[in-house]
Amino acid sequence: MTLKDDVKTVCAWAPASLSNLGPGFDTLGVAISGIGDRVTVRRTRSESIVVIVDGPSKLPTEPRSNTASVAGLKVLELAGVEGGIRVELEKGIPFGSGLGGSAASAAAGALATNALIGFPLDEPGLAEATLAGETVASGSTHGDNAIPSLVGGVILVDAASPATYRTVQPGHEIFFAIVVPELHVETSIARRMLPAEVPLSDAVRNASSLAWLTESIRDGDIDLLGRMIMRDVIVEPVRAALIPCYDVIKSAALEAGAPGCALSGSGPAIFAVSGNAEQAERVTAAMDRACREAGFGCLALTSTIDPVGARIEESNQ
Amino acid sequence: MTLKDDVKTVCAWAPASLSNLGPGFDTLGVAISGIGDRVTVRRTRSESIVVIVDGPSKLPTEPRSNTASVAGLKVLELAGVEGGIRVELEKGIPFGSGLGGSAASAAAGALATNALIGFPLDEPGLAEATLAGETVASGSTHGDNAIPSLVGGVILVDAASPATYRTVQPGHEIFFAIVVPELHVETSIARRMLPAEVPLSDAVRNASSLAWLTESIRDGDIDLLGRMIMRDVIVEPVRAALIPCYDVIKSAALEAGAPGCALSGSGPAIFAVSGNAEQAERVTAAMDRACREAGFGCLALTSTIDPVGARIEESNQ
Repeated sequence: MTLKDDVKTVCAWAPASLSNLGPGFDTLGVAISGIGDRVTVRRTRSESIVVIVDGPSKLPTEPRSNTASVAGLKVLELAGVEGGIRVELEKGIPFGSGLGGSAASAAAGALATNALIGFPLDEPGLAEATLAGETVASGSTHGDNAIPSLVGGVILVDAASPATYRTVQPGHEIFFAIVVPELHVETSIARRMLPAEVPLSDAVRNASSLAWLTESIRDGDIDLLGRMIMRDVIVEPVRAALIPCYDVIKSAALEAGAPGCALSGSGPAIFAVSGNAEQAERVTAAMDRACREAGFGCLALTSTIDPVGARIEESNQ
Repeated sequence: MTLKDDVKTVCAWAPASLSNLGPGFDTLGVAISGIGDRVTVRRTRSESIVVIVDGPSKLPTEPRSNTASVAGLKVLELAGVEGGIRVELEKGIPFGSGLGGSAASAAAGALATNALIGFPLDEPGLAEATLAGETVASGSTHGDNAIPSLVGGVILVDAASPATYRTVQPGHEIFFAIVVPELHVETSIARRMLPAEVPLSDAVRNASSLAWLTESIRDGDIDLLGRMIMRDVIVEPVRAALIPCYDVIKSAALEAGAPGCALSGSGPAIFAVSGNAEQAERVTAAMDRACREAGFGCLALTSTIDPVGARIEESNQ
């Protein structure tokens, strides 16, 4: 390691994501525009270090526990590069929001590190590194946040092999009205609450709904999309019970004209879909109001699909 | 009822179908070319009657038990027409084959009866009547045979509402190598053998596989389609155990180059997919040989998608 290596830095940004999208537990996610995490990486002689430059104090700073550094270190490992990394993490995504913050940090960390060492990994390698980061945060390997954050767009992940994925090209622009109530849902706890077994009829129904959901995205049928994201009979009913203001926010979204509304990931983020920007803004306002009237502060935003995913913002070499 | 009414007849034919298609239990089916059931209907003054003009003696001839007559009588009921029907049924689809014979008879019976009374029902009405016929045969209402037989093509049925369906337009021609071993699987018994509950992980995996499967059909990616029809971890493992020659036939199909092979419905029909006719013919021959070497006579055929579904063949008025 030379002094020159030490001053070279790469900064990458990766978008937040909505995951599950109703019946798409662990398999369907979308990168969203306008909100994301920023990671700046430089190489170190041996020990790695994580510095939270902007974010809550409860974020892990141990390099083997922070998703950005785990993903970066995985890039080094896959590329066969020795040494460590210094990772500066700037959180734009609220901690524990259900907007895929851990995944976005991992995607940005992986991409920045790969750039830092001359891009030895291709996209599958970056996906593997990003998933490694995501896994350390959530306690399970699921790609429906990690892959959208990395590659952008609407992504169908193979639940049996999370590094395998494909893009579902939407036939119509999709807008999202999003509210994140100020309450915390721990992803790993939310996962443990899920039933070990489900009725066969529910499994059949969810499978059918997911296929209809991807078809509706392809066809750009936003009304059908809205109905289908509300058809999860397995995961969301369990998770929604953890979020006291969920029902009123969902009702407000539907009353304001949204075709559908669901939890993102394990929540507390709640999103509604819309086929036009104006309606989405109106729905966001209604959800925001309902959340505050229910006694919870919140972050509210209107977003759309981020088609790019993680990108290099700055490279000082 | 006049003498003139008595001599007026309509003959309709409806194609066989493959159902489930791996993870698509009760939700994904396809009408296949070249094999189907024929139903000729005429009105009667009051009592209905079913005549099997070609088919096994075990087919029910009681009008409230035969799928063709039940579907036809449902058409009369939905249209508010009194009286009965005389139904002549010519089975082209082997009884209990897993090729949707009961559904094809129902689709042909519904269409013929609708034509006989001047087409009062639209497609949703015909779908309802066809499903009524299918239900009397299988003991449950599932549309993945009935709807393809009625409307043709690859059909995604809403498992929660079997009369709701949509066409999945294949991006590439699909050929099917099909073998029906001479052994009987009773659909209602095969359904009762299914587990009441399934592991959540299996439910998630099947949902993901089904979404990947419909995407592969849309994209015309036959290799992916083949892999996905082999990914059902819930239904097919139970059903395949009822078919002693299943494993050798599947192996023969894959060795002959088929990208994938699965049970149709509750079997015993076994189908392999292919992207070209020549390969499909080769695969059919290999499956046929393997079945006979395993000690079972069989019907073997190579088919493709029937895009039309039930159609009027003759109308004598």
